[in-house]
Amino acid sequence: MIARLAVIGVGLIGGSLARALREAGAVGEVVGCGRSLPNLERARELGVIDRFSQDPAEAVVGADMVFLAVPMRAMRGVLETIAPALAPGAVVTDGGSVKGSVVADAGAVFGAPPPFLVPGHPIAGTERSGVEAAFAELYRDRRVILTPVEQTAPEAVDRVEAMWRACGAEVTRMDVSHHDEVLAATSHLPHMLAFGLVDTLARMRENDEIFRYAAGGFRDFTRIASSSPEMWRDICLANREALSAMLGRFSVELADLARLIREEDGDELLALFARAREARDRYIDGVR
Amino acid sequence: MIARLAVIGVGLIGGSLARALREAGAVGEVVGCGRSLPNLERARELGVIDRFSQDPAEAVVGADMVFLAVPMRAMRGVLETIAPALAPGAVVTDGGSVKGSVVADAGAVFGAPPPFLVPGHPIAGTERSGVEAAFAELYRDRRVILTPVEQTAPEAVDRVEAMWRACGAEVTRMDVSHHDEVLAATSHLPHMLAFGLVDTLARMRENDEIFRYAAGGFRDFTRIASSSPEMWRDICLANREALSAMLGRFSVELADLARLIREEDGDELLALFARAREARDRYIDGVR
Repeated sequence: MIARLAVIGVGLIGGSLARALREAGAVGEVVGCGRSLPNLERARELGVIDRFSQDPAEAVVGADMVFLAVPMRAMRGVLETIAPALAPGAVVTDGGSVKGSVVADAGAVFGAPPPFLVPGHPIAGTERSGVEAAFAELYRDRRVILTPVEQTAPEAVDRVEAMWRACGAEVTRMDVSHHDEVLAATSHLPHMLAFGLVDTLARMRENDEIFRYAAGGFRDFTRIASSSPEMWRDICLANREALSAMLGRFSVELADLARLIREEDGDELLALFARAREARDRYIDGVR
Repeated sequence: MIARLAVIGVGLIGGSLARALREAGAVGEVVGCGRSLPNLERARELGVIDRFSQDPAEAVVGADMVFLAVPMRAMRGVLETIAPALAPGAVVTDGGSVKGSVVADAGAVFGAPPPFLVPGHPIAGTERSGVEAAFAELYRDRRVILTPVEQTAPEAVDRVEAMWRACGAEVTRMDVSHHDEVLAATSHLPHMLAFGLVDTLARMRENDEIFRYAAGGFRDFTRIASSSPEMWRDICLANREALSAMLGRFSVELADLARLIREEDGDELLALFARAREARDRYIDGVR
């Protein structure tokens, strides 16, 4: 049970956490913080937060749980700002897509990652953003990965885990670097391919005509290229080592594929496509 | 108006054409042909075809319109088989995803592409296959590209165009090589990326765990990797020149992207992602 939750960044991710905890009766008061005054006012109107401050240090006063749902590049500054204002015993966690950079940011601000900081990542989201898009069910049956480090207090991890469980999420724990590798593979690389594909086509001379003949599969395939450019720039920079490694791995695969096509190696092409379909169908069965 | 339509390959594509033409009252009799006897029997039960033969030469006898909905690699053999059995004045068209190879197949069989052959490509489909998946609305408001060559009779093209219009499709005409380039860009390359991504992940040691953390975006992005491996092997081989060129173009894009990440060039990353999102949103608006 959380007495006072401070949500820094009241958008889809932060707003949905607040809504879910309220619906579960797992939170007393919710204090919001963000840069956009109209968004904060709207969040209060919608009942997502009880009150707000535009100053993160003010927002966290007296909070026993602080959730940081800010862009990756803003993490360090927010940690710096809230550090002197945190209540004794307060736990801080975040929703960032990369965890190594959050741990590094915390190290830079506090000298070493503090015991009360539990790096976390809810694997959830929609294409929409802003508090209007927030809903209590966003995290139900979704996975949340926590990546405590050596310095993290076990009881802080337990409290964050209980918070996410109250939202209906399935919580797992993972090494920081392993998290960043897994996400590079399943999320960051696919986004690079979607952005890269659409950009390749957009740069072709007859691009208007080309897009006209794209069918349904293209629409699905490129949906993630409609994501926020700013957010993805930040994720790329924050996870550049793991993502670079995955890009390298994929480039080798693509070069192999191009060679099989050039050499008209039907047997190997069939084997590759069959292996991929089998893996994809297995994954989809696993999701069901 | 078609008096007798022969559909060689009664699956989603061929079966939906028959259903659409019947619904439009634009066809008299439909004769089916295929390798699977149970599928043909089912097609007759469902009313998609009136009768069938497993011999393509027998199936086309007396037909004024012949539609080839067979795998790319089967085109040449089918053309060879039906050539001596075609009625005078019969028009032959196909639904293959690559057009250069169909024209080459026709050249090999007939010496030169015959006047009665209209290479075509309906840009439609679902993940399902077989006659059970066929439905009359598949082609409604979808594009069909016809790629007549120098030798093609204009009245044959007009008749095929009228057939597709009767199904509610929008028909356009295009050069053979331009069609194959456009499809390499909008369909064949995306399929390679989806197959390649899933295969890359499947080959990683901890692949079961990796797939477990894939979220909704991954599901959409890789949907097309659940397509038929045999069909895609054939498409790759049939369109290898245009597809190799597109793979080359994309590899350059991916190398650029990898360099921007490695060099932490946030401005250029932002510009690339913004350009892609803008193009994707413009395309989606165009589709609506």
